[in-house]
Amino acid sequence: MTSDITTCGMPSAPSVRGVLLDIGGVVYVGEAPLPGAVAAVARLRAAGIKLCCLTNTTRAPRRVVVERLARMGVNIAPEAVLTPAMAARRALHEDGRRPHFLIHPALAEDFADLAPPPDAPAAVVVGDAGEGFTYAALNAAFRVLVEDDAAFLALARNRSFRDADGRLSLDAGAFVAALEYASARPATLYGKPAPAFFAAGLAVLGCAPDEAVMIGDDVEADIAGAQAAGIAAVLVRTGKYRAGDEARIDPPPRALAADLAAAVDWIVARTRG
Amino acid sequence: MTSDITTCGMPSAPSVRGVLLDIGGVVYVGEAPLPGAVAAVARLRAAGIKLCCLTNTTRAPRRVVVERLARMGVNIAPEAVLTPAMAARRALHEDGRRPHFLIHPALAEDFADLAPPPDAPAAVVVGDAGEGFTYAALNAAFRVLVEDDAAFLALARNRSFRDADGRLSLDAGAFVAALEYASARPATLYGKPAPAFFAAGLAVLGCAPDEAVMIGDDVEADIAGAQAAGIAAVLVRTGKYRAGDEARIDPPPRALAADLAAAVDWIVARTRG
Repeated sequence: MTSDITTCGMPSAPSVRGVLLDIGGVVYVGEAPLPGAVAAVARLRAAGIKLCCLTNTTRAPRRVVVERLARMGVNIAPEAVLTPAMAARRALHEDGRRPHFLIHPALAEDFADLAPPPDAPAAVVVGDAGEGFTYAALNAAFRVLVEDDAAFLALARNRSFRDADGRLSLDAGAFVAALEYASARPATLYGKPAPAFFAAGLAVLGCAPDEAVMIGDDVEADIAGAQAAGIAAVLVRTGKYRAGDEARIDPPPRALAADLAAAVDWIVARTRG
Repeated sequence: MTSDITTCGMPSAPSVRGVLLDIGGVVYVGEAPLPGAVAAVARLRAAGIKLCCLTNTTRAPRRVVVERLARMGVNIAPEAVLTPAMAARRALHEDGRRPHFLIHPALAEDFADLAPPPDAPAAVVVGDAGEGFTYAALNAAFRVLVEDDAAFLALARNRSFRDADGRLSLDAGAFVAALEYASARPATLYGKPAPAFFAAGLAVLGCAPDEAVMIGDDVEADIAGAQAAGIAAVLVRTGKYRAGDEARIDPPPRALAADLAAAVDWIVARTRG
């Protein structure tokens, strides 16, 4: 029998003030909340722990993510939901860049209120454009990159995804790689496992790295990513978790939990009252 | 004043039995032969030197290349014109592979007589598909690569090309890079500067590397490529040549010639009667 929680090393656990929470595969799968997950989020809040949802979705705008969580009984402020699009939006706003988009049409609303001046320097934002990855669209993005000395923001670097027909299909990372090769300009990733994405989550929480814990089901993007940003991380055995994932990274996750409920119990027990 | 020929090092020149000849920018530009080029080819032949044309074109079938040369007064056997498509065709035939194509439609005739059995192992051949680089077409190629354990043949790796509107546009290399990233399978290049492409040219000539000379206008693809294959190379100051190109590679070209006529004179003078 596997216990609900296994900790790895780390004799003295610091106080936990905030949690960065992956949601797909941790809080829900598809439209169904995972058993005990909604109550677990409520326990986190009752313990006074701040929450920021960190998701790599590149086909749903933040509004849709917030609405999906609300339908399951998890009410969270839009500001506490961080997607690659929202992180890229913040960077575009802070840098005063005029974006050229090659993204999923559903994400347009996340960037709707940007109003850069016409002479602002350019940026190319590449996400999961799906069938929108045509030669003409890719070439237009390429020309902005090389002619306008544009910044290059990638919402994802995934190689492939399991498609509706059960087969692997090309994901956004392939097209980011194509544009990087042709333009000889490296893209900056906005999303897990990029350290800047975790830093943006910490800013939402108002926490230092050693005051936060990441909870996720993806040992690379969630756990190794958080740890590279100096944040302790708990791997849950739900969602995309496969047996032995915890041994695939070094150092291993701070803890391995059966599910979100077990992860929350472990965190709450380590929180200064 | 610049002399017609400058040699670099190489005290004793070996006997020259065959010439590998780049054609675009060396024999002609567009549809117009360069001054003295047609007569220079005739002088090579009169000296008993064998000829193989080595071109990186990925939008014209071999038949069209042969016809273009014939219109200019250069009659050459189809077998002595090597394009990336013809080199890939040979590899597919020798390996008994069943090809999946993502290439320019004009190249289809170069592969028309391949007849692999239905159960032959697969190969993906990527060339300059232009507007044919759609998400669906790229995804179909990706699926053959990852599901069928296919060989991956690239007809080119160019990042970009000068388009009809005078601006740079994405070239085939970007899409080769996309598929390499997503599939984690490296492509094999059929074309200059791949050593295998020069080796195929030597096979056409029936020459050892030290019995042949490459003549080209592209210091990287033609000259560095040939030299990496152990073949001496003469850079001509026509076509895409830009002042100082000869200093961009180490070792430098064996000789720098004003044009094909000067290169041929230099070679003929070094040929054993």
